[in-house]
Amino acid sequence: GRRAMGRAMGLAGLLLGLFLVPAVLVSTSLRHGAPQTEPPPVPAELELASGAVPEDSVWPLPQRLRTSPRQLQLAPSRFQLVHGAGSSAGPACGLLEDAFRRYYEYMFGQSRRRQRGHRPQGRRGGPELSQLEVVIESREPACHSHPRLGSSEAYHLTVTEPVAILKADEVWGALRGLETFSQLVHEDDYGSFLVNESEIDDFPRFAHRGILLDTSRHYLPLKSILTNLDAMAFNKFNVLHWHIVDDQSFPYQSIYFPELSDKGAYSYNHIYTPADVQLVIEYARLRGIRVIPEFDTPGHTQSWGKGQKDLLTPCYNGEQPTGSFGPVNPILNTTYDFMTKFFKEISSVFPDAYIHLGGDEVNFDCWRSNPEVKEFMKKQGFGNDYAKLESYYIQKILDIVSSYNKGYIVWQEVFDNKAQLKPDTVVQVWMQNNYAHELSSVTEAGFTAILAAPWYLDYISYGQDWKKYYSIEPLNFPGSEKQKKLLIGGEACLWGEFVDATNLTPRLWPRSSAVGERLWSSRNVTDLHDAYKRLTNHRCRML
Amino acid sequence: GRRAMGRAMGLAGLLLGLFLVPAVLVSTSLRHGAPQTEPPPVPAELELASGAVPEDSVWPLPQRLRTSPRQLQLAPSRFQLVHGAGSSAGPACGLLEDAFRRYYEYMFGQSRRRQRGHRPQGRRGGPELSQLEVVIESREPACHSHPRLGSSEAYHLTVTEPVAILKADEVWGALRGLETFSQLVHEDDYGSFLVNESEIDDFPRFAHRGILLDTSRHYLPLKSILTNLDAMAFNKFNVLHWHIVDDQSFPYQSIYFPELSDKGAYSYNHIYTPADVQLVIEYARLRGIRVIPEFDTPGHTQSWGKGQKDLLTPCYNGEQPTGSFGPVNPILNTTYDFMTKFFKEISSVFPDAYIHLGGDEVNFDCWRSNPEVKEFMKKQGFGNDYAKLESYYIQKILDIVSSYNKGYIVWQEVFDNKAQLKPDTVVQVWMQNNYAHELSSVTEAGFTAILAAPWYLDYISYGQDWKKYYSIEPLNFPGSEKQKKLLIGGEACLWGEFVDATNLTPRLWPRSSAVGERLWSSRNVTDLHDAYKRLTNHRCRML
Repeated sequence: GRRAMGRAMGLAGLLLGLFLVPAVLVSTSLRHGAPQTEPPPVPAELELASGAVPEDSVWPLPQRLRTSPRQLQLAPSRFQLVHGAGSSAGPACGLLEDAFRRYYEYMFGQSRRRQRGHRPQGRRGGPELSQLEVVIESREPACHSHPRLGSSEAYHLTVTEPVAILKADEVWGALRGLETFSQLVHEDDYGSFLVNESEIDDFPRFAHRGILLDTSRHYLPLKSILTNLDAMAFNKFNVLHWHIVDDQSFPYQSIYFPELSDKGAYSYNHIYTPADVQLVIEYARLRGIRVIPEFDTPGHTQSWGKGQKDLLTPCYNGEQPTGSFGPVNPILNTTYDFMTKFFKEISSVFPDAYIHLGGDEVNFDCWRSNPEVKEFMKKQGFGNDYAKLESYYIQKILDIVSSYNKGYIVWQEVFDNKAQLKPDTVVQVWMQNNYAHELSSVTEAGFTAILAAPWYLDYISYGQDWKKYYSIEPLNFPGSEKQKKLLIGGEACLWGEFVDATNLTPRLWPRSSAVGERLWSSRNVTDLHDAYKRLTNHRCRML
Repeated sequence: GRRAMGRAMGLAGLLLGLFLVPAVLVSTSLRHGAPQTEPPPVPAELELASGAVPEDSVWPLPQRLRTSPRQLQLAPSRFQLVHGAGSSAGPACGLLEDAFRRYYEYMFGQSRRRQRGHRPQGRRGGPELSQLEVVIESREPACHSHPRLGSSEAYHLTVTEPVAILKADEVWGALRGLETFSQLVHEDDYGSFLVNESEIDDFPRFAHRGILLDTSRHYLPLKSILTNLDAMAFNKFNVLHWHIVDDQSFPYQSIYFPELSDKGAYSYNHIYTPADVQLVIEYARLRGIRVIPEFDTPGHTQSWGKGQKDLLTPCYNGEQPTGSFGPVNPILNTTYDFMTKFFKEISSVFPDAYIHLGGDEVNFDCWRSNPEVKEFMKKQGFGNDYAKLESYYIQKILDIVSSYNKGYIVWQEVFDNKAQLKPDTVVQVWMQNNYAHELSSVTEAGFTAILAAPWYLDYISYGQDWKKYYSIEPLNFPGSEKQKKLLIGGEACLWGEFVDATNLTPRLWPRSSAVGERLWSSRNVTDLHDAYKRLTNHRCRML
């Protein structure tokens, strides 16, 4: 087993220019005063040997998985991924064609064996799996559309001699099934490719399974974002929550308002052009991943003010403007004229049905200092309750975005501040303190919720913190069955204060994989020892 | 300033295939519940602008640095690094020739400007610096030798029109001065290369400034080790403490005992061949870095037992051997025969005058369980004091290593257990608990000490922990002046339980830079705000 795994690693290592021992998560010794709360050492040999058993390597664990000890051989020179009889998708389905090639490469490594010699090689004698037939059952396979919150990701996979069959309603389920199939294929000690006869019935527990990337605190090059999308697909995540701008920088290059990035980005080159954005969206679509952009207002907008005059509130010290600016100025018509045009662009650039509108951490001090804002408060009868002013602003933004037929997600403060929200608003819960109670309140009020609070992966600590993320049970909050249904999923958030291209991947993966399995697999998949074995192998495969 | 820095970054980014904002350490906002103990946000613009001032970018800070506002231009097509008149080194000094080319590249970027067009371009008019003359003053420049604990790293650098002069006793000081000179050269807003007229007198505060890498818990590919040596040179570190083997794996390929890695390494490929080891040593030598290997015994040796029969102590349960093994068996003559031969090899493979012999964390349970060991204890009159048995073993190993004319470093337990140590033993202090007291005891007993305890960089936490490492004052322990002189330096240790090639660099740098400055610069260089500015720029340059 050890040699076999070493071999597989050698291949992956070669591809990446890295030679890695597969077990970064293995705490094999506690040398030199490391905290004594860690589990006892696991012998490396045992861990590596387990890689030979395919079901020890599937991540996230399917809802129903039966494998037989009977193994089928795969010959890379002959094996094919094809559209099955009766499928509504065919060669014109670019998404599946692209996925076939991608997964062929993952399984057999850059087609090297297809090219080696032209003499057809005979069968070795054992039973062989000759192809995987993919059958899309819905009349509309969705090859050219974008994944939605309601998209079906369910699939049914049977692996028996001589063909495996992968059935799914839509292409999104086929993508998930291809990922699973590729995880079942493994090499034995002699380098032969094998798969156990298996039957899998699978579907996600939660519909919204996201990763938040923050490209404002530090700019992330396009390549980092794409690499992350690959990793997300390996873990069956389906939402990239793109926290694209914030106080620190405005890298989004707007078509209507190019000055926003001209003046608000870290430099002329630290931007995402319209072509960049399209590339991210398409790369994600091909992997069944939605891209939800966040344009957070009225707070977290310092960088907006550089390229858009009069957008932010001037702060005062007594009678005098200080020269500093606060949140978006909610009392000017020009603000809403700008937002109307800006969100018209965003609504058309980003195909997803949802936009994240932020609304968190609004500091009221600057509003409070501004005489015109105070006058406005009086006129509106808001008294001294600036949460009402925030709600007034948010309400208008929600109306604007609604007029473009978009849904919206907001951070929990918007709900906490009692803004009038449409019933279809999605509330994202992030405050670590008593988040179960917040989930309870949000769903009791009838709103849909997303949980992020326990999965802030920018926080780091020594040791295997993935166990902490893994052990979270999202539905463990007080509420009725109906309330529980309103929790549509969760997100692992990697805020960018201390993250850039140099450390993004090792900080996010495989730690996020723990969240991935929690959101996909059945509620009762909680065995840490079993998860550890599978995650170790899964990391090796990802590398 | 911002644009200029963006430009310089663009270049560095291109070289690395990365586009990075230079300030991963900048905690510019504390969004979403981040700990409130962080300092207030620093505007990004201010930080970046400071990059234009050269003295804001030198790391570690020289002992004496005077810069004038007068700036000299450098023309990459004309500028030369040359051996100065009266230097004992010349073109035959491969080490300096190699360094000239390396630093030319760091300063001007892959000679791109030398190649662009052949028409000689005229002077722009301003004062120009045409060359850097390097003068080695000692009669023996040490071009072909290895750096030693006592090597001189002092240098004197004057930058005035039309030539800069770098004087050093030995090549080691010249390497440090070249690094400093390259840090003074910067680009202005128009892309011109400039250096301020300056005078620098510099030397290290401590002679031993090390980084510990652990290649046993996870194998590190050669490339990772070499990259780390580059980073060490950027920070004037001069010792690679190579914790090459441990319980988990034995990647060192021994010439006399190849079975040690054949059976003890993670795989056939996860090894360091003799040629690999030579490459590391030579790459380090060219950067003025010593390579001190650690072969830790009698504990931490599980991987040794796989390839060397009867080396480890069989553990017992009552009368029965359990099949497990403990530390090296100290009662057999074969053990010392093996060690004599093994350390003969190590002494010849590694040119440094010191070998690290480990000696930490010896668990006595297995020795206690073994009837023959118990018998031996009785015969030796050790009673039940197994520390005496450990000392007995260590004593013999020290004698073996001494016979090869090597000095040795040991972990603090060897001292704590009262082994009879030769006066020239170096004791490395690692236990975090009350390390000042330990330094006091070690030096009071007259031994030389190295401090590692406060610089265990495998421990991680959210935020700018570099400040914690930076704020350590190594001499802050009770003792006489004579005792203080016995502390020869320190090491930043990156144990490998959770580190491999995927995260080595971002985990180690720039956090280790804090330790680098503490060990090189004057005791009074403690201003965190100033350090922050310089470190931000230094990180950008390293990238």
